[in-house]
Amino acid sequence: MGNEPLFLGKPVRPLVLGGGSWGTALAFHLASKGLPVTLWVRDETLCAMISSDRENRVYLPGAIFPKSLDVTSNIEKSLSEASFIVLAIPCQGVRETMKTLSSLGAPRLPIVSGTKGIEQKSLRMVSEIVSECYLSDPDQYAVLSGPSFAKEVVRNSPTAVVVASRSQVMAKETQSLFNTNYFKVYTRADVKGLEICGALKNVIALAAGISDGMGLGANSRAALLTRGLAEMTRLGVALGANATTFSGLGGVGDLYLTATGEQSRNRTVGVRLGRGEKLEDILRDLGQVAEGVTTAQSAHMLALGHGVDLPVTRAVYRLLYEEASLVEVLRDVMDRPMKDEEEF
Amino acid sequence: MGNEPLFLGKPVRPLVLGGGSWGTALAFHLASKGLPVTLWVRDETLCAMISSDRENRVYLPGAIFPKSLDVTSNIEKSLSEASFIVLAIPCQGVRETMKTLSSLGAPRLPIVSGTKGIEQKSLRMVSEIVSECYLSDPDQYAVLSGPSFAKEVVRNSPTAVVVASRSQVMAKETQSLFNTNYFKVYTRADVKGLEICGALKNVIALAAGISDGMGLGANSRAALLTRGLAEMTRLGVALGANATTFSGLGGVGDLYLTATGEQSRNRTVGVRLGRGEKLEDILRDLGQVAEGVTTAQSAHMLALGHGVDLPVTRAVYRLLYEEASLVEVLRDVMDRPMKDEEEF
Repeated sequence: MGNEPLFLGKPVRPLVLGGGSWGTALAFHLASKGLPVTLWVRDETLCAMISSDRENRVYLPGAIFPKSLDVTSNIEKSLSEASFIVLAIPCQGVRETMKTLSSLGAPRLPIVSGTKGIEQKSLRMVSEIVSECYLSDPDQYAVLSGPSFAKEVVRNSPTAVVVASRSQVMAKETQSLFNTNYFKVYTRADVKGLEICGALKNVIALAAGISDGMGLGANSRAALLTRGLAEMTRLGVALGANATTFSGLGGVGDLYLTATGEQSRNRTVGVRLGRGEKLEDILRDLGQVAEGVTTAQSAHMLALGHGVDLPVTRAVYRLLYEEASLVEVLRDVMDRPMKDEEEF
Repeated sequence: MGNEPLFLGKPVRPLVLGGGSWGTALAFHLASKGLPVTLWVRDETLCAMISSDRENRVYLPGAIFPKSLDVTSNIEKSLSEASFIVLAIPCQGVRETMKTLSSLGAPRLPIVSGTKGIEQKSLRMVSEIVSECYLSDPDQYAVLSGPSFAKEVVRNSPTAVVVASRSQVMAKETQSLFNTNYFKVYTRADVKGLEICGALKNVIALAAGISDGMGLGANSRAALLTRGLAEMTRLGVALGANATTFSGLGGVGDLYLTATGEQSRNRTVGVRLGRGEKLEDILRDLGQVAEGVTTAQSAHMLALGHGVDLPVTRAVYRLLYEEASLVEVLRDVMDRPMKDEEEF
């Protein structure tokens, strides 16, 4: 095994946490390169189904697992055998999972995070939760983001994503690990910016969906996306991120995908809101998390705390949490004084 | 008439040049504010039809002209009565029209340009053609751009655009003139950047259409749009534009509209190319200009001249002008070395 690939100096043994569509796709992707991958699925029933089907029929039907992909619900054993972690659980579960990992006493492993969102109440990004509860060295942390529907990734449809890490070594090794002819990985240094993009784009996608549901047209949707991107950037810069991150794959790219793709849950929620349906009814039908709904609140709170004006996010927040009417929130967004495009 | 609105100190008498959908929409928009607008339509048959129908049934059916909108094919008379010009003719005709205006000997009028594109062979932007042939003072020139399908504008669908001028006065007065509750106008200083956006987005929309026509999926389209935006920005910066212009309504916003809207001719041409159809057949069916086809060549030449790498534009160019195959150009775009996202 002299030619065995290494990641940060160790043989590559990825442990992917999370049996949703994105965790399954990332595990599948690495295993398709011949790497011995373990996919940890917390729910034992789902885990057993995936193990026997060799396929995640619930969240990613159609991708038959390569031999080198193992599925388990035993976190302790899989952690002890892994050389690094790929994080793909919902944002609101990250703190608890990181605490569980810490309590197991094994050496701390580097983390590549594919989780998007902001923790409610604490308003923490994933990197911050990880550093508080598990991994104190930020140079061992990278975030992977960009326009990537899971089911297209496992079909080898051309996809481009971006990896950010404070450490150039971590960024470049993660890039090499994930890159293929059909899955192009770019690098960046701006972890915080990429995480803010990944969270806030869901709110803007909701807004674009609302506009579509109201039948306001393509001009309106394009304007909302652009002004939404401007406010994501504004919040990011206030929090110490780099503005150029927002023009890249994790910003503009993922926003395009999330706001227009028929596969996007956040867009779907927005469209139904725009038609006048109630949030509780929509979420009941959906049966899955629409991250933008919780992120609208977190982003609104972050903006208030940092004195940043986010008109599109505020409109979504008011519609979801203050029972404002569609007409009111639309007026909020449109009836603003004439401005220079870069005036904040 | 003491309260008559003024534009640059004179009573507002707009002369809109161009009876296509965008010229008609801009004339309609200003006339709907009660302003006395003249729409110049070069083609006498079309002009006569529009005059008698009070509607441009060929290019913008459904918008019945307000009383204050006058239609003419007499350029000399209309020029003598106008206080400024709104330019909305195809880019390749701008030089000839500017020369005609100059030859009439009337005082030179300020210009608000809604024309997008690059002049073939000379590789000039509209502002450069205007300044060479008609208006030597760049402070009297503004460009209006952004995500705005004409037929949505005349329906009062919410729309946001941007006006750029070297002169802040010109930018702000143009903003006040065009702004309404449903047509929000932002300002910028970067004329060149906004013009490059307006031209190059058509090429990137072609590329996104090609990807869709090939069935490559939503990830691929989002990646092409984002990498396309990055290369538009790169060329712009090399030509002296401001990078932030490309993140605004004229860049991200218009790219998004043009690349995804079913009303976009450039996207349509791309989709059919991606299905393997021949360009000449597509253009014959279309019967209208698809600006991206000529701009692909101009942008490719500009890039060569300035030593800027535009992989997406080059791929479109090779497909259109060098009979490269779809597979070849796709390989060109995907098989590139692993990079940092901001490395040029």
